[in-house]
Amino acid sequence: MPSSSKLHAYIHGKIQPLQDAYLHVSDLSVQRGYGVFDFFKVQDGKPVFLDDYLQRFYESARLMDMAVPLSEKKLKEVIAQLIQLNQLPLSGVKMILTGGYSPNGYDLAAPNLIMMQQGFSLPNRATVEEGIKIITHEYVREIPVAKTINYTVGIRLQKEIKAQGADDVLYHQQGTVTEFPRCNFFIVKQDNTVVTPAKDVLLGITRKRTLELASQQYPVVEGPVTLEDIYQAKEAFLTSTTKRILPIVQVNGRAIGDGKSGTVTLDLLDRLIAQEEQQVSRTA
Amino acid sequence: MPSSSKLHAYIHGKIQPLQDAYLHVSDLSVQRGYGVFDFFKVQDGKPVFLDDYLQRFYESARLMDMAVPLSEKKLKEVIAQLIQLNQLPLSGVKMILTGGYSPNGYDLAAPNLIMMQQGFSLPNRATVEEGIKIITHEYVREIPVAKTINYTVGIRLQKEIKAQGADDVLYHQQGTVTEFPRCNFFIVKQDNTVVTPAKDVLLGITRKRTLELASQQYPVVEGPVTLEDIYQAKEAFLTSTTKRILPIVQVNGRAIGDGKSGTVTLDLLDRLIAQEEQQVSRTA
Repeated sequence: MPSSSKLHAYIHGKIQPLQDAYLHVSDLSVQRGYGVFDFFKVQDGKPVFLDDYLQRFYESARLMDMAVPLSEKKLKEVIAQLIQLNQLPLSGVKMILTGGYSPNGYDLAAPNLIMMQQGFSLPNRATVEEGIKIITHEYVREIPVAKTINYTVGIRLQKEIKAQGADDVLYHQQGTVTEFPRCNFFIVKQDNTVVTPAKDVLLGITRKRTLELASQQYPVVEGPVTLEDIYQAKEAFLTSTTKRILPIVQVNGRAIGDGKSGTVTLDLLDRLIAQEEQQVSRTA
Repeated sequence: MPSSSKLHAYIHGKIQPLQDAYLHVSDLSVQRGYGVFDFFKVQDGKPVFLDDYLQRFYESARLMDMAVPLSEKKLKEVIAQLIQLNQLPLSGVKMILTGGYSPNGYDLAAPNLIMMQQGFSLPNRATVEEGIKIITHEYVREIPVAKTINYTVGIRLQKEIKAQGADDVLYHQQGTVTEFPRCNFFIVKQDNTVVTPAKDVLLGITRKRTLELASQQYPVVEGPVTLEDIYQAKEAFLTSTTKRILPIVQVNGRAIGDGKSGTVTLDLLDRLIAQEEQQVSRTA
């Protein structure tokens, strides 16, 4: 059992200590890796862009033939209770919906809904300024538009990432890139056009915000990006809920642009941070 | 929680009632669908072809960078205890190894080993004589040679199988077929050559036995099988631990051969049953 803490979680229809949040092994997540999830950030006790995340969570469940057992209204009440109980300064709330307790270990049953809150750190300024190094791997997620719990390939690649001295792995299919296991990918072309893949990717909420912000100042394209495009790009970065916007300075050992965090990237990050703070203070 | 029963399971290093077999939600199976498993048959209290299944289980774990926390000797002792306690007439033992209680919900931790035994029925004679209908779907399992718990696509296809009035779904890639979600696939050509795909498939233990038995009487080929090959075949069948050898009489609405269970197929089934009974009585 994990180390005890004061945190609370929601499971089996009620809030209880996280350390007591257990699922029977007949659950289809354990038996067959079947489930969906979503994850949103909580700053100063306020969920950031909550409606976007909830909408995607319900949509992932629908795509995988599962029904979320709580209405959106009720879900928001539970979220508010968890935030109130846990009192974390900066955190994420993870909602997991599994295939349920299947009598034969294969057929879908009544889904189990779990909500847990956990602290995390945003990348520090040094990491942002230095940028990260990535490698690539040929793979397309199964049912990419749904946020399933299947990270079989991503987790197995952790060893390879470390061996290559890199920080993350970008998936591609025959040279056309898609996404990271947990992040979306962008490049900035020499003419400052901001481009992100649109096919076979999870439609990230931070990706959406970044596209909105970028379109206020730069040409924006949602379309194919090849490995060759990356080598020719001025800048590259990833987006995610927990990493916001993070510069990428090297891919497969080759420098991107001048090998430093790009100015367009850092401009977008500053504006995203401002937007998040504005949204949090507005809902205060 | 699932309905109570007298069955026992192994979890957290000890045998306990199955109804008390719970995993904390921080387990990587729940968080990320990460784990491997295997499943062998127990007839009259005797495991059938146990060494083959254990070898594959340890190999799947190795391929996914996990270590089985018990030696093969100790694992066999636990299996013997479970069989003795549960006293089931015909059953399967499922061993699941998950990515463990991961503090950050992504990095591999000390794996959790679960063993559970459950009763099941072999296909009855009427089903064997009638044969089954299948549909096809373009998909290759991730890391096909490892028996991972990822059945995201297979379970999601259950609805489609039912809608088409079929019994199972055969995966293919651009017309070259591989396997079912939980079974291997064979055809018998007009000249009685027995053929099964060898690439991108799980190496089933019943597949291996069937190849051995077939080679005593027929030409045997492990190699590519296309959808067109199936339409031209005399017979087709699937193999699995729980289904043994099951005739397939229709694919995508088209009859295979004369649309009836084939004589080569039924011959192989009879000989497989005899071999299983011989092996069980030998270990008595």
